[in-house]
Amino acid sequence: MIYFNCDYNEGAHERILEALVKTNMEQTSGYGADPYCLEAAELLKKQCKREDVDVHFLVGGTQTNLTVIASALRPHQGILAAETAHINVHETGAIEGCGHKVLSLSSKDGKLTADQVEQAYLAHKTEPAAEHMVQPKMVYISNPTELGTIYSREELQKLHEVCSSHHLILFMDGARIGYGLEAEGNTLDLPCIAECCDVFYIGGTKAGALFGEAVIIRNPAIKEDFRYIMKQKGAMLAKGRLLGIQFLELFRDGLYFEMAAHADRMADRLRTAFRANGYHFLVENTTNQMFPILPDGHLEALKKEFSFEYQAKVDETHTAVRFCTSWATREEQVERLVEKLKTL
Amino acid sequence: MIYFNCDYNEGAHERILEALVKTNMEQTSGYGADPYCLEAAELLKKQCKREDVDVHFLVGGTQTNLTVIASALRPHQGILAAETAHINVHETGAIEGCGHKVLSLSSKDGKLTADQVEQAYLAHKTEPAAEHMVQPKMVYISNPTELGTIYSREELQKLHEVCSSHHLILFMDGARIGYGLEAEGNTLDLPCIAECCDVFYIGGTKAGALFGEAVIIRNPAIKEDFRYIMKQKGAMLAKGRLLGIQFLELFRDGLYFEMAAHADRMADRLRTAFRANGYHFLVENTTNQMFPILPDGHLEALKKEFSFEYQAKVDETHTAVRFCTSWATREEQVERLVEKLKTL
Amino acid sequence: MIYFNCDYNEGAHERILEALVKTNMEQTSGYGADPYCLEAAELLKKQCKREDVDVHFLVGGTQTNLTVIASALRPHQGILAAETAHINVHETGAIEGCGHKVLSLSSKDGKLTADQVEQAYLAHKTEPAAEHMVQPKMVYISNPTELGTIYSREELQKLHEVCSSHHLILFMDGARIGYGLEAEGNTLDLPCIAECCDVFYIGGTKAGALFGEAVIIRNPAIKEDFRYIMKQKGAMLAKGRLLGIQFLELFRDGLYFEMAAHADRMADRLRTAFRANGYHFLVENTTNQMFPILPDGHLEALKKEFSFEYQAKVDETHTAVRFCTSWATREEQVERLVEKLKTL
Amino acid sequence: MIYFNCDYNEGAHERILEALVKTNMEQTSGYGADPYCLEAAELLKKQCKREDVDVHFLVGGTQTNLTVIASALRPHQGILAAETAHINVHETGAIEGCGHKVLSLSSKDGKLTADQVEQAYLAHKTEPAAEHMVQPKMVYISNPTELGTIYSREELQKLHEVCSSHHLILFMDGARIGYGLEAEGNTLDLPCIAECCDVFYIGGTKAGALFGEAVIIRNPAIKEDFRYIMKQKGAMLAKGRLLGIQFLELFRDGLYFEMAAHADRMADRLRTAFRANGYHFLVENTTNQMFPILPDGHLEALKKEFSFEYQAKVDETHTAVRFCTSWATREEQVERLVEKLKTL
Repeated sequence: MIYFNCDYNEGAHERILEALVKTNMEQTSGYGADPYCLEAAELLKKQCKREDVDVHFLVGGTQTNLTVIASALRPHQGILAAETAHINVHETGAIEGCGHKVLSLSSKDGKLTADQVEQAYLAHKTEPAAEHMVQPKMVYISNPTELGTIYSREELQKLHEVCSSHHLILFMDGARIGYGLEAEGNTLDLPCIAECCDVFYIGGTKAGALFGEAVIIRNPAIKEDFRYIMKQKGAMLAKGRLLGIQFLELFRDGLYFEMAAHADRMADRLRTAFRANGYHFLVENTTNQMFPILPDGHLEALKKEFSFEYQAKVDETHTAVRFCTSWATREEQVERLVEKLKTL
Repeated sequence: MIYFNCDYNEGAHERILEALVKTNMEQTSGYGADPYCLEAAELLKKQCKREDVDVHFLVGGTQTNLTVIASALRPHQGILAAETAHINVHETGAIEGCGHKVLSLSSKDGKLTADQVEQAYLAHKTEPAAEHMVQPKMVYISNPTELGTIYSREELQKLHEVCSSHHLILFMDGARIGYGLEAEGNTLDLPCIAECCDVFYIGGTKAGALFGEAVIIRNPAIKEDFRYIMKQKGAMLAKGRLLGIQFLELFRDGLYFEMAAHADRMADRLRTAFRANGYHFLVENTTNQMFPILPDGHLEALKKEFSFEYQAKVDETHTAVRFCTSWATREEQVERLVEKLKTL
Repeated sequence: MIYFNCDYNEGAHERILEALVKTNMEQTSGYGADPYCLEAAELLKKQCKREDVDVHFLVGGTQTNLTVIASALRPHQGILAAETAHINVHETGAIEGCGHKVLSLSSKDGKLTADQVEQAYLAHKTEPAAEHMVQPKMVYISNPTELGTIYSREELQKLHEVCSSHHLILFMDGARIGYGLEAEGNTLDLPCIAECCDVFYIGGTKAGALFGEAVIIRNPAIKEDFRYIMKQKGAMLAKGRLLGIQFLELFRDGLYFEMAAHADRMADRLRTAFRANGYHFLVENTTNQMFPILPDGHLEALKKEFSFEYQAKVDETHTAVRFCTSWATREEQVERLVEKLKTL
Repeated sequence: MIYFNCDYNEGAHERILEALVKTNMEQTSGYGADPYCLEAAELLKKQCKREDVDVHFLVGGTQTNLTVIASALRPHQGILAAETAHINVHETGAIEGCGHKVLSLSSKDGKLTADQVEQAYLAHKTEPAAEHMVQPKMVYISNPTELGTIYSREELQKLHEVCSSHHLILFMDGARIGYGLEAEGNTLDLPCIAECCDVFYIGGTKAGALFGEAVIIRNPAIKEDFRYIMKQKGAMLAKGRLLGIQFLELFRDGLYFEMAAHADRMADRLRTAFRANGYHFLVENTTNQMFPILPDGHLEALKKEFSFEYQAKVDETHTAVRFCTSWATREEQVERLVEKLKTL
């Protein structure tokens, strides 16, 4: 059985484990106040080409989303997000658990447009009964989105402009950010993201680390006392250095981007094969996730050898499914699937 | 200027004030442990024709909604509600403020169907990643709804059946319940509501009291320690007897229903006049709210003499607005509007 | 039976009821946006001798405490308060329900000193593991306190200085503020309180109104969007004018202070009588509450005619109890008790 | 510099790392639904000698405490805990952040007695204004406590009896449970703990794992939907198998207990040396933490070679500090300190 379910089926890149083994018996302070975390933070600042950001390391994505949001909002404020947003659908109400409403906006491709955000903001602002409604204060986007699509530089800059002019906080969930930055057609880079977003994070869990998300905060109000809120939310790892060591390894010589590029190329190969065999996609994208639509019979045949995820029923006889590649995907695994597709 | 904006523009029915004046200097215990609250609770049990309910008196609707929901749910559980539901739109995230997600379902008339509820429940239950999603546990309905529509006895019983079979809690917001029970075509009554709902409330604020909502709880799990949660949420009135005295007056000889019936007849008269003049409604209903669609020019003309509320833009030149009657609406006010409509 | 349990055994001063009756059938906007609330707010600003405060009207004390605190603090911040503080003991965890820890400090008389506050602040600030602890950010005091004691002008100013220099928010619960301002030995007034506190409130519920607390906010950060948070917490009364009308009546010609002075004089009379009969007090004070210590046998004798509250067991055979006077206490009630004490 | 600050200065036992390396490229399901977690859960059930418990793996202690408590309590319920309890002092209000008050009880040695718990419970139950107070519903204990002391079998059984008879939930924080079970004088074991506690956890983070806490739940109400609440609180690790693999390694042949025993023997050696040199302890204990009281001058001398933690100022010239041993402490490190003590 070959797994294309998700990008966290395996452990970590071998260099990650080597780094952990090598440093294992050193004695350091806990809670992220160790030399590895400090060095990794400096490295990520350089990646973002700015000194005025704070860097914190957390363990997982839901934890990171709720900690950032709890840190940024007052009780009556909510978050504009695509209806497909991870925080809206797949975090068991983690954000509501911190007291905040997710204000979902319709989206076909998982992205929000600057216009949508501005309209939602203005609709609230001009509403006579505004005080009876949740105040939109943050805009949550993912890059890549839950549907594997990416924002262009222009789209992100427009979102930034709208947010800035209306004092909205722009937050990018970058759980799969590497896969976005290495995708065909990508025009973003970390410095641009750091400039446009008040806060964003660089995901390790789905990109070759054992676990770990690096939060980059530019907005001073969110920076303040962020570690208190990490601790309160159970998001401050005792042996924090495990995060610093991993991010150091990921970024000291480009391993993070290499792994993402590999996964994206594997995905490109698969997409080409799906298309060559006449399949369409639920949504067009260029990152490590794809959502082909297959006749249900073909799915049954595939299931015998491959593991993948259900996404949506498209019609009586067709279903969209998700195939994911990752840093760990091997060419022979992809070729096996490519060959199989030809036989269906 | 005549106000048709809402059903709480005035104070209270004169008998309410008389009762407050008459009892004013009596000394009683606070927090609802006085003879008036006890007697009013007994009276409401009789109205519901059952002894196995608990009755509590709170001050306002949002407060009641959040107290009931906080009392009933565990952190990961959410509330199925129409997208137009008061808790979803007009309570500044009060429910999310208590940690719970409102899971909104589409609805044209403000109502939920038993089928919708069952589908939403089953979709969650059969979802492989259910644990990553908010668990639907409560169903929130309003009768009348925010759009002035009402549930039939059959519709409510079906909702009850679906909820019972799937261990969902059925909660009815009855802020305007009287206007529903006296509406043309109504087939519900308090005993049926008490039987079908785990918990519901009888609104006083919008129905002739100064303020006050009477919560009727049939579900034993919600009954337990309900007063603790009232206190925690700031919903336990120090001079609780003010609530008991009012509900006693409302229900001791039918005043509550008389006032509601009066408002509904006034509304019927207005609806007939709108129709007679060729206007249509955003939604058909028979309670004390109506949502006629008027050309914008007509609205301008009406605004000089009458106050009403904006509901929705229908097209370039037409707008749906809300007119409300209430226990306090006088026939001459209605007739003035009826005459005015003829002139447009 | 004569009640000395508390200061909310009766309804309201007759002038309050008259004002409600007189305005009853007027039509106004809801939610506190009516002319009465606006006028009452202006009147209270004048009482405080400053224009730079916002005034909001809420229904009860717990509701007010939780709304103010939710509005002022970020998630990791807590409230320094005397161990006897109402928010620490008697609100069923309302503050924790909003996510904030009450950091209690020991106190024999219910008061906090500026020194205590500064020490607690510095202890946190100099703690190496500060991020693992709740950050003290607000100081909650009551005047009079739960033990009926009052702050002097000098004490309050010192608290203000310490709070200002350490960016702590000073919040005064004034549920019984009138009884404090009219007490023998009082050196405070509303302008001084408004100057020293970031936010405080003037209680109506325990001082002659049916209900109502007027929040006065000087701190701009707490002012911002306060009405949103009121609505979210269920603290925005639909018929908000009921609060404005009452506060107008209380303050337009000094009725509030007259009633408080009356209660304090009645309490002085009772205190003198207790002392004359050889009783001591759990704590010395000069406001409308007193806590005499009586032999248990005497308590049994008193209970036949008088209602009062248990406070604390002092030793095997003595108990401290609470007697309260109020705006509604009549001289003959006090004299009956004075006479009775002589017979014990 | 030799670190005796805490028991998480290093990474993990080498066997833990070997197990992670060995399994690294296997493909498994995420979120704890993998064969390693299932096998580890079975192994821990066997350790507890009962089948009727659920086992879940979380990452850290604060996260575990808040998830368990959020899962177990309704909004108005609080937790009885020693004033020194980790949840009361060192979790930045994580429990209050979930809405619950920690009701602290005084304790000299970090332990609660069954009598204390019963008195607190009865004090609440017999309080006339109980509804105005947080309801004690859970009892939180740590074994060993934050002061390194341990419960005897008899003490734990008495706590269990009191809790059972009053429907209180008994929750043991076992972040250092191994160090307790291997301590001189210990009379507890896992089966007894599993029988007495509704829920407890076995700490990995401080006991030789990279991270990880294994929650053992006996109480059916807490079992229900526990994974939903884990997910909501950000406590469900994507690559959950990392936890299963570690706990398997810790418990498959007794490594966990061996490491704890080693640390305890190292601590015994140190305690003997402190005593031999005439030092006293802030509190007597037998686990891997000790709190010797030293003249400030001696501390200065020690600081040049050893790292340890400040605990409390004892008098003008003496300070209590914390020395910790762990699974990773080497004999030569201990001997260096023993020799040093002789020179002071």
